[in-house]
Amino acid sequence: MGPGNNDVPKFTNDSDNLSERIKSRIASGDNFFSLEFFPPRTEQGASNLIGRLDRMGGGGPLFIDITWHPAGDPGGDKITSSTKIAGTVLTYCGLETMLHMTCINQSADTMLKHLEKTKSLGIRNILALRGDCEDENRPLNDDGFNYGVDLVKFIRKHYGQYFTICVAGYPNGHPDNPSYKNDLHYLKDKVDAGADFIITQLFFKANDFLQFVDDCRDIGILCPIIPGIFPIQTNRSLVQLTKLSKLDIPEEVANVIEPIKENDAAIRKFGIDFATDMCRTLLNSGKVNGLHMYTLNLETATAQILKNLGLWCTEVARPLPWRASGKLERKSHEEIRPIFWVDRPKSYIHRTQEWDEFPNGRWGDSASPAFGELKNYHLFFLRSRTPVSKLKQQWGEELNSEEDVFHVFEHFINGKKNQNGVKVTETPWSDDGLSPETALLSETLAKYNALGVLTINSQPNVNGVPSTHPIFGWGDKGGYIYQKAYLEFFVNETNAQALKQVLSEYEPRVLYHIINRCGEEDYTNADRKVPNAVTWGIFGGKEVIQPTVVDPVSFKVWKDEAFALWLEKWAKLYDDKSHSREIIEDIASNYYLVNLVDNDYPNENILWEVLDKMLHIAQTSRDKNENVITHVVEKSLNGHSHVNDKIVA
Amino acid sequence: MGPGNNDVPKFTNDSDNLSERIKSRIASGDNFFSLEFFPPRTEQGASNLIGRLDRMGGGGPLFIDITWHPAGDPGGDKITSSTKIAGTVLTYCGLETMLHMTCINQSADTMLKHLEKTKSLGIRNILALRGDCEDENRPLNDDGFNYGVDLVKFIRKHYGQYFTICVAGYPNGHPDNPSYKNDLHYLKDKVDAGADFIITQLFFKANDFLQFVDDCRDIGILCPIIPGIFPIQTNRSLVQLTKLSKLDIPEEVANVIEPIKENDAAIRKFGIDFATDMCRTLLNSGKVNGLHMYTLNLETATAQILKNLGLWCTEVARPLPWRASGKLERKSHEEIRPIFWVDRPKSYIHRTQEWDEFPNGRWGDSASPAFGELKNYHLFFLRSRTPVSKLKQQWGEELNSEEDVFHVFEHFINGKKNQNGVKVTETPWSDDGLSPETALLSETLAKYNALGVLTINSQPNVNGVPSTHPIFGWGDKGGYIYQKAYLEFFVNETNAQALKQVLSEYEPRVLYHIINRCGEEDYTNADRKVPNAVTWGIFGGKEVIQPTVVDPVSFKVWKDEAFALWLEKWAKLYDDKSHSREIIEDIASNYYLVNLVDNDYPNENILWEVLDKMLHIAQTSRDKNENVITHVVEKSLNGHSHVNDKIVA
Repeated sequence: MGPGNNDVPKFTNDSDNLSERIKSRIASGDNFFSLEFFPPRTEQGASNLIGRLDRMGGGGPLFIDITWHPAGDPGGDKITSSTKIAGTVLTYCGLETMLHMTCINQSADTMLKHLEKTKSLGIRNILALRGDCEDENRPLNDDGFNYGVDLVKFIRKHYGQYFTICVAGYPNGHPDNPSYKNDLHYLKDKVDAGADFIITQLFFKANDFLQFVDDCRDIGILCPIIPGIFPIQTNRSLVQLTKLSKLDIPEEVANVIEPIKENDAAIRKFGIDFATDMCRTLLNSGKVNGLHMYTLNLETATAQILKNLGLWCTEVARPLPWRASGKLERKSHEEIRPIFWVDRPKSYIHRTQEWDEFPNGRWGDSASPAFGELKNYHLFFLRSRTPVSKLKQQWGEELNSEEDVFHVFEHFINGKKNQNGVKVTETPWSDDGLSPETALLSETLAKYNALGVLTINSQPNVNGVPSTHPIFGWGDKGGYIYQKAYLEFFVNETNAQALKQVLSEYEPRVLYHIINRCGEEDYTNADRKVPNAVTWGIFGGKEVIQPTVVDPVSFKVWKDEAFALWLEKWAKLYDDKSHSREIIEDIASNYYLVNLVDNDYPNENILWEVLDKMLHIAQTSRDKNENVITHVVEKSLNGHSHVNDKIVA
Repeated sequence: MGPGNNDVPKFTNDSDNLSERIKSRIASGDNFFSLEFFPPRTEQGASNLIGRLDRMGGGGPLFIDITWHPAGDPGGDKITSSTKIAGTVLTYCGLETMLHMTCINQSADTMLKHLEKTKSLGIRNILALRGDCEDENRPLNDDGFNYGVDLVKFIRKHYGQYFTICVAGYPNGHPDNPSYKNDLHYLKDKVDAGADFIITQLFFKANDFLQFVDDCRDIGILCPIIPGIFPIQTNRSLVQLTKLSKLDIPEEVANVIEPIKENDAAIRKFGIDFATDMCRTLLNSGKVNGLHMYTLNLETATAQILKNLGLWCTEVARPLPWRASGKLERKSHEEIRPIFWVDRPKSYIHRTQEWDEFPNGRWGDSASPAFGELKNYHLFFLRSRTPVSKLKQQWGEELNSEEDVFHVFEHFINGKKNQNGVKVTETPWSDDGLSPETALLSETLAKYNALGVLTINSQPNVNGVPSTHPIFGWGDKGGYIYQKAYLEFFVNETNAQALKQVLSEYEPRVLYHIINRCGEEDYTNADRKVPNAVTWGIFGGKEVIQPTVVDPVSFKVWKDEAFALWLEKWAKLYDDKSHSREIIEDIASNYYLVNLVDNDYPNENILWEVLDKMLHIAQTSRDKNENVITHVVEKSLNGHSHVNDKIVA
């Protein structure tokens, strides 16, 4: 049905089990890749990594793999802990995640604690490793954790088939085991103990891997074997990693690198070409469908190799208009969210993480949706990765008037450089910059923002475009997508009063909600418990899907967050009692948060007309006041003192 | 939003309580009416009454009132029992229902049994009466049921506020009570005991009623008082009823009636004019918002009076495209049904009556919807009201070939008279004749039916028409309605095979299901558990409503019913072993039931093209066979006998 685009994948109801998915990809000859990252040492580094994963997730990895950093409190709650990072990637970036885990020198209690934690975060895939070992002649561990196979057995014993287990293979032999053949038997033991698939250590020759696969098959290792691909990016990392892995750099590689070893750009180019060639050989061998990329936490080289191979997704294919969480219970059921959090999806996921059930067919009568309480934690845990100094360049080193604030919004929307010569790429209300949908309206929106209509969320009306539409599309191909025009903004009291007056002319076409920070001023013409579907899609062979609603009950929850962001993310950039801070605090205290829906989506968006009338009335009322004041002042100058009888003229 | 029509009522979330609804109508000055019927004496009469109520329900009564017939097993399970009829009106006609109940000479046990039964049927409104009494000087009843007030007290004592209770008022005094004033005090006792509103006995002078209201108010009766209106329809019924009610016919009425008393048409015309005038006076008095019509089970006079007063709805205003059941738990939750039963809504309600929950937002994954078993009871309880002789005139006194059957379908669709000079107004698959939607397609459908594509259900595609559309509209005004083209039919084996071949060209645009009676031949390209929304509506301030789906699981349940109707409703018209009966039995055994959905609703319906290709392929394959047979016969005539080597040429 409908104008189709064959390049967009169909969202099939894939198995929830990674091992099954890998097998089904191999069975259908459908190539795939996975990306390995390590936990950064600093909080800023961890925040940056999450941002990078948000982007690289768009390339379409089958899963993300997070290494275990034994010295970095790997099972802890620090933002730099391996487990915490893996949980964040799964829950907030919505990407299937595998976590490494090493067992050497650990007690059974510690391993159980790690596994419980991993399970509680929703992670279902573990790469079971022995871990690095200083002394090969060490005494055996009391709890029996001496080799990778011990961890595989332990996991299967305690968790049955709950986890998919991956183990490491060594195409050039294990660095600590002089016998390649002997090492293959250890690998077979791990598979026999319950491992589902194998990822290999890096290697430099395609043939080494292909021979390794043949050798594995010969001794009865039948599970999938995925080659680990190491893109050479700098001489330093190459030397470091080969030393760690006790691998020799082949002469032909060393010969190319040596003359250019100080030229990072040249080495990276060589690394990309070299890895691309090797991967082509592997994929053409008929023995390889998947590639596991050792990214070293870098984006360019890995993405380029995968682009060269045609594996990197360039089309954004979204099953729903917002990015779903990767956690199983959410991924399989959640199909509806209130529109308010559309630019703060991580906050939404966080504030609803305790829900037992997620709405799918309908949002329903959400008399009291139990949103997590608003704490600084929610505002900052997944906080801006931008340092204060850069934020001030964007949002103002200092503010002299409300108009300065208007211009920050204006510049965010129109993408032009501000007085500091920088672009405003974020606001407190937007995790990921301007959405493509909002960009479509940017010229119009920028004009209103300059006039004090501070927009924080919007979508145009859409009357049945193909589900493959580059901006509005989501879901299976062949469907049709609809939206009602939506606009959400802050305005001052004068505008809010004018708006109320204007809106009476637009009932019931325009549904509105106008509320101030404390909520004691609260106006709406919507049923206070009935949600309004504002995005929906019609697909062949499915029920109607309506992924975003304007829900009056949730709006009050969002309102608290939206006002708090003024204070927590913006006002606090400035010194206590500074004029700049006062301006932001005044706005948070005196402005109104407004949402408007134009229900008549097949016709031209009427919300601009509403705003024009609001601004006109507000201007007229200001002019009147000014006239009166001028008049009064003139009269005073003329010796009159009858002020009161004219003030409301 | 959207092109609106102000005459169409908005479906507000009315109170579930009739007493509240009456009060709210009065408060808003919104006039209403109710209709009183009595239980017919025969099964055929009861069936006819249900049909009449289906029609009169469209006029928009606030409620239907069923009288108590003490001699007719009123609390029984006979189709002529008062309670049974009231339950049927509520459940199957979807109309709010009140049931009369008399108590005189009854035991408390009997009354409790009646009330339990009433409650179990979902009826929540009772008109509590004493009942007719042969002997005013009878001894008092042991269980205390001597007056209407005793029943009011008894209901309140045992059921609290569960029931809305109505009581009778007598504007001309109670026939058994000589004192008008004394009778008013009895009425006050009934209201004080818990009655919610009053309906009066018939009267002939508006002033009698208005005076009665004033007298009631004077002694503190403050609840709503609804006048009972008796349209004079024949002299006989007038005399009979006034005698029963011990009322005098006013001289001015008698003077008009006397000269025309043998002329029913003239009396009815007078009755309509007389009642219209009286009702106008009442409605203009400012004391009356509702009229209770004593219909005497007749349609014309009552409908005409209410049309004259502008109270009869002429626009079909449907909250959903199918008629909801009036039972509370269904009315407030049920919003989705499979399309298959769209022309047999009573069967659907019956087969799902045991459900605890009714799907609203989504049909969902109905792995095993527990439909009631298919029994003759389901096929016949709500059976055709047409006698066998009339059915045979429509469906054939006798059948000579399958083509005779094709023509029955053809005539049903095109509305033309058949060889017996009668119109085919019903089929076994359609409770209420041709739907307006199907009528739109009648020319095209008739052509296919004549060729053996025996259609039993269809809807055209609709791409966003206003919800006030005269044919496709439903729900609140200002919304937009959508449909996917749907077609369901029986075809023979040759056509079914041809169809399978054709459909491969139309994937995934056309979803199909082809199944035979026993279900061992069962082809579909739909996910076998996922429903396909085929009707939906978008409204301001609401979630998407999708009232009909094509659900693959329910289709198999429907299939049994659809095939059984051939045998139970059609074949059995003819003698066992007759040729006519054989023809129908052969069709039921050998034909396939097919449903087709064209998912691409914004574009022109492609299902006709599919049917054309199917018929072409089937024809070609028949021609081939005929050629071969002709060829073989020719060869045989020429002395050849090599039959087998040519038969599949």
